[in-house]
Amino acid sequence: MQVHLHDQFWKPKVQQTVSHTIPYQWRALNDEIEGAEPSHAVENFRIAAGDQTGAFYGMVFQDSDVAKWIEAAAYSLRQNANPELEAIIDAVVDLMERSQGSDGYLNTYYSVAEPEQRWRDFAFGHELYCAGHLIEAAVAYYESTGKRAFLDMMCRYADYIDRMMGPEPDKMQVYCGHEEIELALVKLYRVTKESRYLQLSRYFVEERGKQPSFLTEDPGFGYKYKDRWFELDYHQAHAPVRDQETAEGHSVRAMYLYAAMADLAHAYGDPTLVETLRKLWDNVTSKRMYITGGLGSQGHAERFTIDYDLPNDTAYTETCASIGLVMFASRMLSIELDSRYGDVMERVLYNGVLSGMSLDGTRYFYVNPLEVHPAVAQYRYDMQHVKTERVPWFGCACCPPNIARLLTSLDRYFFTQNDEEIAMHLYASNESSFDVQGRRMIVRTDSRYPWEGRIQVRVHLDEPTDCTLSFRIPSWCRQPSVTVNGELLGLDQLVKRGYACISRRWMDGDDIQLDFPMTVERMESNPKVHENAGKIALQYGPLVYCLEEVDNGPDLTDICLVEGSEFKPEYREDLLGGIVVLTGEGLRSEHTWANELYRPVIRSKTSVPVSAIPYALWGNRKPGEMTVWVREHK
Amino acid sequence: MQVHLHDQFWKPKVQQTVSHTIPYQWRALNDEIEGAEPSHAVENFRIAAGDQTGAFYGMVFQDSDVAKWIEAAAYSLRQNANPELEAIIDAVVDLMERSQGSDGYLNTYYSVAEPEQRWRDFAFGHELYCAGHLIEAAVAYYESTGKRAFLDMMCRYADYIDRMMGPEPDKMQVYCGHEEIELALVKLYRVTKESRYLQLSRYFVEERGKQPSFLTEDPGFGYKYKDRWFELDYHQAHAPVRDQETAEGHSVRAMYLYAAMADLAHAYGDPTLVETLRKLWDNVTSKRMYITGGLGSQGHAERFTIDYDLPNDTAYTETCASIGLVMFASRMLSIELDSRYGDVMERVLYNGVLSGMSLDGTRYFYVNPLEVHPAVAQYRYDMQHVKTERVPWFGCACCPPNIARLLTSLDRYFFTQNDEEIAMHLYASNESSFDVQGRRMIVRTDSRYPWEGRIQVRVHLDEPTDCTLSFRIPSWCRQPSVTVNGELLGLDQLVKRGYACISRRWMDGDDIQLDFPMTVERMESNPKVHENAGKIALQYGPLVYCLEEVDNGPDLTDICLVEGSEFKPEYREDLLGGIVVLTGEGLRSEHTWANELYRPVIRSKTSVPVSAIPYALWGNRKPGEMTVWVREHK
Repeated sequence: MQVHLHDQFWKPKVQQTVSHTIPYQWRALNDEIEGAEPSHAVENFRIAAGDQTGAFYGMVFQDSDVAKWIEAAAYSLRQNANPELEAIIDAVVDLMERSQGSDGYLNTYYSVAEPEQRWRDFAFGHELYCAGHLIEAAVAYYESTGKRAFLDMMCRYADYIDRMMGPEPDKMQVYCGHEEIELALVKLYRVTKESRYLQLSRYFVEERGKQPSFLTEDPGFGYKYKDRWFELDYHQAHAPVRDQETAEGHSVRAMYLYAAMADLAHAYGDPTLVETLRKLWDNVTSKRMYITGGLGSQGHAERFTIDYDLPNDTAYTETCASIGLVMFASRMLSIELDSRYGDVMERVLYNGVLSGMSLDGTRYFYVNPLEVHPAVAQYRYDMQHVKTERVPWFGCACCPPNIARLLTSLDRYFFTQNDEEIAMHLYASNESSFDVQGRRMIVRTDSRYPWEGRIQVRVHLDEPTDCTLSFRIPSWCRQPSVTVNGELLGLDQLVKRGYACISRRWMDGDDIQLDFPMTVERMESNPKVHENAGKIALQYGPLVYCLEEVDNGPDLTDICLVEGSEFKPEYREDLLGGIVVLTGEGLRSEHTWANELYRPVIRSKTSVPVSAIPYALWGNRKPGEMTVWVREHK
Repeated sequence: MQVHLHDQFWKPKVQQTVSHTIPYQWRALNDEIEGAEPSHAVENFRIAAGDQTGAFYGMVFQDSDVAKWIEAAAYSLRQNANPELEAIIDAVVDLMERSQGSDGYLNTYYSVAEPEQRWRDFAFGHELYCAGHLIEAAVAYYESTGKRAFLDMMCRYADYIDRMMGPEPDKMQVYCGHEEIELALVKLYRVTKESRYLQLSRYFVEERGKQPSFLTEDPGFGYKYKDRWFELDYHQAHAPVRDQETAEGHSVRAMYLYAAMADLAHAYGDPTLVETLRKLWDNVTSKRMYITGGLGSQGHAERFTIDYDLPNDTAYTETCASIGLVMFASRMLSIELDSRYGDVMERVLYNGVLSGMSLDGTRYFYVNPLEVHPAVAQYRYDMQHVKTERVPWFGCACCPPNIARLLTSLDRYFFTQNDEEIAMHLYASNESSFDVQGRRMIVRTDSRYPWEGRIQVRVHLDEPTDCTLSFRIPSWCRQPSVTVNGELLGLDQLVKRGYACISRRWMDGDDIQLDFPMTVERMESNPKVHENAGKIALQYGPLVYCLEEVDNGPDLTDICLVEGSEFKPEYREDLLGGIVVLTGEGLRSEHTWANELYRPVIRSKTSVPVSAIPYALWGNRKPGEMTVWVREHK
């Protein structure tokens, strides 16, 4: 399968990631961005390799920033040959090789700063986590360039880990506090066909959560973060994975675990794991997910809290957690076609992921709250994690390269394919080729998604081919219609688990028209979400909208939309790179307030125009308030 | 002036404080309450006196718990002779005397635990704070019993402090991080007439906030709480007091400072200080006060945040801060008659203070939030300070004896008097006697306040007397009326700054009828209070109401009151000791929700009965949710 995006929405973002973000992040990793938080990540490798002296600086997992950056850059090379960039990567790989121990071990923090602590802090040490990101980077670089050096290094590392850890009595029975190695080993297995890597991944997942847990004996577990939000559930280690039914703990850790579980369920055809994953999916998406696809209700321990606890202004909603949800969703789609996964993948991609990066690709949110009052957020202790504007870099910089690698590999999330079915999950203009029973099938898609819901799909074939083409019917669409060569299909029969599955003998030039009319929807929350009572969120197609102060004035909470009044979508080429703006009517308090704080209700309201923009693009103009959830009045 | 309450509302509360709370708290201070947090406060004195060995335990200001308890008990002795209780106090005073140094110093923490640290940590050491509470206790005990021992001890302590601290070059130029000594010294001055005490109080207040501040050199300042919420403003030391225009920092500290400033403004007739106090009053009550009179929007540093930032579920609203606001308000009323002070004093007393203690007087809230969802509050890191039920005692137990001393001295807050005017600020049945130009005037008040707004006042005199009787017109009352001997007065002329001031030659038996009709008011917040947008609070007379889960079911945020629908007040003798309950109609979501978290708005609502009880009494039945602010729908 090869997917080439030429989409008016995504292509510029991907291209900008290639042309601006990747070079920018390389400079950030080399501490060349003025005013940005220091990284030192590349220098750590230089020190570890002995090229220079100095002390390690940064998080214990600083290596993973470089790894994710290489992975992002590697994906970009597939369609954007760039010898200069390749030379930079080769040089880093060389540096890494010289940092690698003869046993295969590679980690600058433990090599430089705490060599005697190697493999002693599984709870917070992030050694296997960093190994996982290096493996993912090596796999990507190998796939893009065919160069084996990095991959071979990582095989040596994985072999070493495999010698050290596993179920056998002479090995360590352990797993990493922060999941990542598990899904990376599956990738390494896929590219090398070495089944030991798959088995090691399975071991780590199956070992997780066995009680009593080795983690509680781990030096890092107790003393680093001695409070109840950092107990075993923080690491998804409170119960064997098959006994986990609710999403607990650090939300990025959780997503990476579930993604790995899905990989293993798929690789081993394991129905019990699939059953667990369905339960976890349900819990995440129907009890603990923001409407933007954001995850993690609490800043402290960056974690899930309890069902329906979704505060908007203190939300954590880490960009990496949203990316993790995309990974979880796309892997579930490889297991079973169900639009619940595709719908959420679309939701989180267009909203909670994209909000993590500025329009120009060089400023980032780590935390993506759904409501911001800058003066309050900048003052309050319980909002310290909230930034009211995107920043150039972070001391803990996991998110920026994560979003970069997602965008340069975005093409991988559009389709899944099995023997007789090609399923399309996301919509954007692209030209993609598939091998269907040994024949080449080209599927060309044209659309102005997410601004318009009409999608034209044209099939190109050398000879007629029997297969199923399946298209996700977006859950936000009230009146979808599908035609093939002008003939309207009856969706009632056609749609299975949210996908219109069209099985036929496809001919060259067959034309499929998907029409998903976009209307402005007012979304409400389950009444158990206390924060959103009486409020609605505007949604247009897959996009969640928000109000910004720059368009609507301060005290956004004072704005109340009028029930039944119409919001109009209008494409504005001049705004934020071209977006559909929603405009309508709201009510605001009249200026009858003197110096009082409280008074008997007067309820004198005045009509005001209200303008909403896609949530993902907030904070790209003048700083100010923002809110997704808005009150609604009869 | 002597005020005797015989009120149906207050008298049982005061009596219960005398008969149950004071003995209960004595047992708590002696660690005799099973399941309560340990106190050790009395034992600390035994150790300091050398009666027993052991280590100090508790907060550095643990002594003040005993002091406030003595003060509460002392007030109770005025109208409830109790030789047994007096003997207990005498024994504690004796213990204290034996704990006191020959120089006058008395503090068990610094004597027992850190003798070398005496007078070295003004930021957090609380030495002068504890001294202040001991002085207040001594003054109260002397006033109630005429016994001088404790008072003399405290004069020795104050003399010692006066020798150590002051503007002279050979003294320490300092003040206490936690204000309290300042107002205590004014009390000591009033009872002893020793002007040095007044001058020392003035010194502490005037020294405060001079820059650069000695506090930043203080060992306690930097290392104990090294973050920006504990900077100088936490101690109201960021600027000289006359330059302070907004209420900053720890809210109890702030209130105690303002109370002392008002005492000094009054004692010295200082108009610049009065001007400052008016500004601070405005800032507190029109920008930073909850509708319950609660103060302190943030748990971390127990402090004020910024204007209009009044979150309901993470509020700190410490009981002591509300008590401090009563102190501030009553002192302002001694300076100038203005119902802004009296209205707030009433508001905070009936709501944010009273909520601090259970109906039976033995369970306490330290934090008094305006919205509680127990499952969320019990889970969330940023709500760790919130207790969802009142508890038997606290490790930091400042609030319980503070509310006790307020209740046993409640009579002091009802009237102020100057040469020719007696002003009544609070309404409750009482019989009070005043010396008016050498003549005795008895004012007898009868009412069923706060359940009914009719107040009968009858004057008893031996001979006709010219003076002004002034009565606060409550701000919540829309149609007040006042008659004297059946004749309706024209309030337009009569009311000055919110008080109906009736000047005449009063005759024995003169009858004043105040009629303040109570209606159910729906209160709204200034739109700048983001948390309360679209919501109203029910108020009936001086009482703020709330909804509890026990009456209204879970998910209280789902309830929406219908604009214009009537809430009916009804006295229910059987409920919570007899209260007016408000009942009306609300709307709730219909049970059309499946497993979804979000959906296009359906808006199917069903009518439900809604029942509200006084906020102060929530949490006295089955534990559950509570909210003051409720949505309102057209």
